[in-house]
Amino acid sequence: MKCSVYIATSADGYIATIDGAVDWLHSAGNPEADMVENPDMGFGAFMASVDCMIMGRKCMETISGMNLSPEQWPYGDIHIVVLSNTLTTPPENLKDKVEMFSGDIVDLLKELENKGFNQAYIDGGTTITSFLNHSLIDEMTITRAPVLLGGGIPLFGQLDNQIKLVNSEAVAFPNDFIQVKYKVNYL
Amino acid sequence: MKCSVYIATSADGYIATIDGAVDWLHSAGNPEADMVENPDMGFGAFMASVDCMIMGRKCMETISGMNLSPEQWPYGDIHIVVLSNTLTTPPENLKDKVEMFSGDIVDLLKELENKGFNQAYIDGGTTITSFLNHSLIDEMTITRAPVLLGGGIPLFGQLDNQIKLVNSEAVAFPNDFIQVKYKVNYL
Repeated sequence: MKCSVYIATSADGYIATIDGAVDWLHSAGNPEADMVENPDMGFGAFMASVDCMIMGRKCMETISGMNLSPEQWPYGDIHIVVLSNTLTTPPENLKDKVEMFSGDIVDLLKELENKGFNQAYIDGGTTITSFLNHSLIDEMTITRAPVLLGGGIPLFGQLDNQIKLVNSEAVAFPNDFIQVKYKVNYL
Repeated sequence: MKCSVYIATSADGYIATIDGAVDWLHSAGNPEADMVENPDMGFGAFMASVDCMIMGRKCMETISGMNLSPEQWPYGDIHIVVLSNTLTTPPENLKDKVEMFSGDIVDLLKELENKGFNQAYIDGGTTITSFLNHSLIDEMTITRAPVLLGGGIPLFGQLDNQIKLVNSEAVAFPNDFIQVKYKVNYL
């Protein structure tokens, strides 16, 4: 299973403030910039490249809290699995959207492969760090908002080993967001 | 005084491992990449744009520990001030290179301006964070090595307020380092 990350952070590497808020992300950047060339900063193209999604519980709760309408739902009809050792059922507004999983992520990937899935979108800081520690992330796209939060929940948690990144790419968008891409080399 | 940052970090934002080591920085990236177009990733051009340097004690101690020969010394004959509330004299191998300062950084900048300096290079994580909290950093160039350390000493410490960044630029070098530049907007 190819596992890819597509996530936004602050310029200092946080995915949320310490209380979980992401409003800074929506207000960051130059609102008057001409984004006609790439209005979604590649998100649609990324979504078209994956066929399933694995996210952590906190990530799911953030999405649930947004109470998105069907028109606002960003993940299409992709198969979504939420990792949790505590919750066995999803929140009411996501019950038709996600499936809960508790257990080993290697087993989960095998299960998904047996169902015919090949390209997973991995989301959420804890989940991404866990996948990195299992040498399971193949590539990462990180979109950094032009703001320093000065504290919060970091994208990357503690890693068991240093991890080498290769095939770097970078682009600064007109709205001052900077997007970087890496492939991960565990050798 | 225009205050600029030029610093290297890991891809997850650390300037050193938890014990202060920076060897990962020198071994990071593709050693076989053709860097003929920009062998120093802009460091020489940056040095040519500043006329003085302010760094923290830990930063100085890291440099002192490298025991650089005159040929290896990267800062030319620029005027260097080291901030410390504990040390009053520099290490023996830097005694002709740096001057110690204890006190308020706003006073230091006035003092340097009175001596005719206009463009300061601000170095070291604690010092940069302190300058940001005093709204004194004008622009930042951050060169991210293609490695996740998974822990260490972060570039950015805790900030008193969120800080907006503007005029983003980004480049991925052939060796897989990614350099980003921002101007800082405190309004």
